[in-house]
Amino acid sequence: MAQDTQQTNRGAWHERRETPYDRAVTGFKNYWYPLCGSREVGKRPARLWICGEPLAVVRSQGKVYAMIDECPHRGARLSLGKMEFPGVPAIACRFHGWTFDLEANGACVAALTDGPDSPVVGKIRLRMFPTQESKGIVWVWMGRGAPAPLEEDAPRLLLRDDTLVHYRWKVVKGNWRYHAEGGLGNHAMMLHRDAVGRLFHKQFGISGMRQVHNQLKLDPDDGVYLMSNQQSGAARAGVVEFEGLGSWPPQRPWRFLGRGFHKKVAGKIRQSGTRLPGLLRIPNFPMHGGLYYEWYIAMDAGHYRYFQVSAHWPKNPLSRLFTKVWYHLWARPMQKGRFNDQDKSMVLHGTEFEARHGANKPTLLFRPDVDPYDFIEMCNRMARGEASEEERQVALAEAQAAG
Amino acid sequence: MAQDTQQTNRGAWHERRETPYDRAVTGFKNYWYPLCGSREVGKRPARLWICGEPLAVVRSQGKVYAMIDECPHRGARLSLGKMEFPGVPAIACRFHGWTFDLEANGACVAALTDGPDSPVVGKIRLRMFPTQESKGIVWVWMGRGAPAPLEEDAPRLLLRDDTLVHYRWKVVKGNWRYHAEGGLGNHAMMLHRDAVGRLFHKQFGISGMRQVHNQLKLDPDDGVYLMSNQQSGAARAGVVEFEGLGSWPPQRPWRFLGRGFHKKVAGKIRQSGTRLPGLLRIPNFPMHGGLYYEWYIAMDAGHYRYFQVSAHWPKNPLSRLFTKVWYHLWARPMQKGRFNDQDKSMVLHGTEFEARHGANKPTLLFRPDVDPYDFIEMCNRMARGEASEEERQVALAEAQAAG
Amino acid sequence: MAQDTQQTNRGAWHERRETPYDRAVTGFKNYWYPLCGSREVGKRPARLWICGEPLAVVRSQGKVYAMIDECPHRGARLSLGKMEFPGVPAIACRFHGWTFDLEANGACVAALTDGPDSPVVGKIRLRMFPTQESKGIVWVWMGRGAPAPLEEDAPRLLLRDDTLVHYRWKVVKGNWRYHAEGGLGNHAMMLHRDAVGRLFHKQFGISGMRQVHNQLKLDPDDGVYLMSNQQSGAARAGVVEFEGLGSWPPQRPWRFLGRGFHKKVAGKIRQSGTRLPGLLRIPNFPMHGGLYYEWYIAMDAGHYRYFQVSAHWPKNPLSRLFTKVWYHLWARPMQKGRFNDQDKSMVLHGTEFEARHGANKPTLLFRPDVDPYDFIEMCNRMARGEASEEERQVALAEAQAAG
Repeated sequence: MAQDTQQTNRGAWHERRETPYDRAVTGFKNYWYPLCGSREVGKRPARLWICGEPLAVVRSQGKVYAMIDECPHRGARLSLGKMEFPGVPAIACRFHGWTFDLEANGACVAALTDGPDSPVVGKIRLRMFPTQESKGIVWVWMGRGAPAPLEEDAPRLLLRDDTLVHYRWKVVKGNWRYHAEGGLGNHAMMLHRDAVGRLFHKQFGISGMRQVHNQLKLDPDDGVYLMSNQQSGAARAGVVEFEGLGSWPPQRPWRFLGRGFHKKVAGKIRQSGTRLPGLLRIPNFPMHGGLYYEWYIAMDAGHYRYFQVSAHWPKNPLSRLFTKVWYHLWARPMQKGRFNDQDKSMVLHGTEFEARHGANKPTLLFRPDVDPYDFIEMCNRMARGEASEEERQVALAEAQAAG
Repeated sequence: MAQDTQQTNRGAWHERRETPYDRAVTGFKNYWYPLCGSREVGKRPARLWICGEPLAVVRSQGKVYAMIDECPHRGARLSLGKMEFPGVPAIACRFHGWTFDLEANGACVAALTDGPDSPVVGKIRLRMFPTQESKGIVWVWMGRGAPAPLEEDAPRLLLRDDTLVHYRWKVVKGNWRYHAEGGLGNHAMMLHRDAVGRLFHKQFGISGMRQVHNQLKLDPDDGVYLMSNQQSGAARAGVVEFEGLGSWPPQRPWRFLGRGFHKKVAGKIRQSGTRLPGLLRIPNFPMHGGLYYEWYIAMDAGHYRYFQVSAHWPKNPLSRLFTKVWYHLWARPMQKGRFNDQDKSMVLHGTEFEARHGANKPTLLFRPDVDPYDFIEMCNRMARGEASEEERQVALAEAQAAG
Repeated sequence: MAQDTQQTNRGAWHERRETPYDRAVTGFKNYWYPLCGSREVGKRPARLWICGEPLAVVRSQGKVYAMIDECPHRGARLSLGKMEFPGVPAIACRFHGWTFDLEANGACVAALTDGPDSPVVGKIRLRMFPTQESKGIVWVWMGRGAPAPLEEDAPRLLLRDDTLVHYRWKVVKGNWRYHAEGGLGNHAMMLHRDAVGRLFHKQFGISGMRQVHNQLKLDPDDGVYLMSNQQSGAARAGVVEFEGLGSWPPQRPWRFLGRGFHKKVAGKIRQSGTRLPGLLRIPNFPMHGGLYYEWYIAMDAGHYRYFQVSAHWPKNPLSRLFTKVWYHLWARPMQKGRFNDQDKSMVLHGTEFEARHGANKPTLLFRPDVDPYDFIEMCNRMARGEASEEERQVALAEAQAAG
């Protein structure tokens, strides 16, 4: 990214225009998102908000269907309805029986209380959202046109047969962008230093991310990421002297664990990275040898779902069992142990700040803010269907060359 | 109603203009409404929202008075005040003692803390709402001008001396119109089929209400109703074959009760009907031989009171006792048993749908929607003080001719 | 105050223009306010809303600092931060370590994660609010410019060494102005007559405040007050005959305590008074011989803090102990005993009334409303930084002459 970027980034006010990112209050629409777990979808429809839309999700004949959770007739929730005809994936609205064929792209095939000759048949369509299932996760396409291949949006490593996948999600208050921007983590050394999982780690005085811009890279195994250019734990300084204030951070004898020994995951991944439509990938977190992904999925302007996925590649049944146990005993509690709550507070504060001061622009940034800056720039250059197609192709070529 | 009505009704989008019905977000003002039960009004004023106004209701010298629950001085609630002068129905505001004569149409007759010569006396008036009591129910006139006779708005059968009346009410979320429109019940066969009181009733495949418009009728004993033209249970079809889907509804051996044997109530009423300002009358529900009325009374744009009244005409003291017991053991629980909650969900969904998509117009209707269509048309033609007086007279003549 | 005031005040509609008072929805900014108790401020920052701003308050090296509770970087709450350098009153934001020197007017002296050479150092300033501590209360200056002397805004008697001070505060719903306007109390004889502390007091038929305007007076010992012109309990009439209604108030044998024997407090204060920026002073309440102050401190447009302070001047250690015991056993419960809740209801009603009818103007006033009228006029003539400086000087001279 160009020279003037570096300049505007140095503690000066950065003026945002009305960009694709500014408009993405409820997320980028033309993407696949993880919607929920496979085991969360059954014959009784569930209701889930995503990208500003209420969705009804249901399983019929083994297949998962997602549709807008509003009958076009009177707005009743289809998630109260059910399949009235055994063996036919056609959901009937609970209110008056308008029935939509989920296999035929939501075509209205009956209006039960109006009889077989109802004139609405064939004239109305329910908005459907394409879905795919893989490794216990249901994916949904939130765009209007034909969906992109799932492999373009879902990390490909997550779709592999030999991957052991764990997930969980929860609802968080605040706008999704404040979490997505901050995901890569120039804040980690401050905000998360007393997270339970980091109590015994060394603290560093200066972020290694300062002025080191991230780089777009196409990883053929997992997709296009904005990769941290910093070696894990390498470029950071130790204790630093701040004139007139003293040295920082304070040295604690019990903080002796370094963080430079992370192994390469999946053969080569050592750095964290972010990507569209708003997710973060961290290697060796919170368990060594695995990959951790988290999505920030807008529900509405003030709420998002925090969707966490862990991937591992155990080599044999015993290591598979061991990984499962370790995940439940260590990884899940460690994610919970202050870490996520600390991030959640910051997202809420950012959202409130924007509400009080109007749109949070111009935003005051400083040198380690390469993460939010680069993430926003990536979104504006590459968001499918939002950025200009020319710029998008340039960015993709750049990523391919760097990959 | 005319030919083009039939056409716009057949699955096409029906465009609403800014009609009296559209404007009645907080109800039709120039009508008598049931406000509460007589036993709910005592010497301590109660506060009740109705048609967008907060009312204070109090009993003094045996008579019920309703007034706006805001002192014109500083907005304090008059429902915190009391009658300061024994034997005089004049309520004093708790804040500074402005005193309003409830018998003299709310004239300010004293400002206690200002002494007998206060200049505000005689210059200020508190807004009063005419009330009447009958059979244990308090009625209130929400209009600005002289009230219509109570018999024009209250079902006359409810005012008769020999009527045994039970009532109850509760607060519901959503706009009153979504309940009023759907009251007559083309939805009942879908929505209410698993209500406790209907578990053993036969199910039908097609609504008898399809394309059969309701008819305005003046019933000299009870008022002007929009009457269902369908014989109870007669015009409906049984199991129907939907091409490519299967037959519907499923036959259940335990559903053997028909619904064609209802007796005429009050000598002649067999069908359900709706009327202004927004109520539904159902014969033989939930107890045979009685009439059931329900009002949807707007509190504000997003809440209404659901006011249910049952009327019976027991022939002797023993059947009177029997009716009372039966009401409490059967009718009340049956109303509660899913039935009302099912309706409440639909009203809330409709209100949310309108909030998301703006004013819910044009609305997509289908053939069995004769009920909402006819109800809206009745309101637009006949709403007192809102519809054109010419059209109102035409509609009344029509109702008289049909009665 | 002039003749036309008297006229507009006699039950006529009083038209307000867009005055300083109208604009003071979240309070008058250029004043000292009591913020909280000294013992409520420690090394862990507290968060408090005042005058529409969120403040972080913290104690460092024994001194109290107040700042806007928003980091200028990303809006994170500074109340989550702490002093990172022992012995240096510089708070570091929890999110990225931006550090602000509280002794140097909030100058940014470090951005920890950016290292000692961070370009933001010296370019950014955190908004600070001057504070002072006195007698266990923390005072804060909410203005933008140089603060006025604390003695101009804080009652001077409260700052004296020999004063025994008790305080408490709570959050109340409603706009602060409705409480401030009504503070002096033409409503007391109606609203508070059944407050626990007044059950045995005589009731009077006419407010002594009718038409008797309050007077601006400079009390050299305590500041500029709008003083009630009425001798406590003297000008009021007893039982009064209201034609056609009866006599009022009703005489109760157990109401025998008069209120004419109040002693002069602090050598000369016998009447109640209000002053800017919105507080009330009452002598001999709820304990004889003491002064009671209450502030109505806007948090936002719909909430304020009700800050109550009692001052006493015990002559020896024994009377000091006795006063403390008496305060906790009598004064606090008496304030609570309906009295405050009655006021709170009225404030809420006034705020709702304004919300329903738009800005509450023109407001209908009557003769005893000299209090709100005079209070509003005082604000418009004297509010520092809001009223015209000429009028302000005239008013101050008037107060000095009357003092």
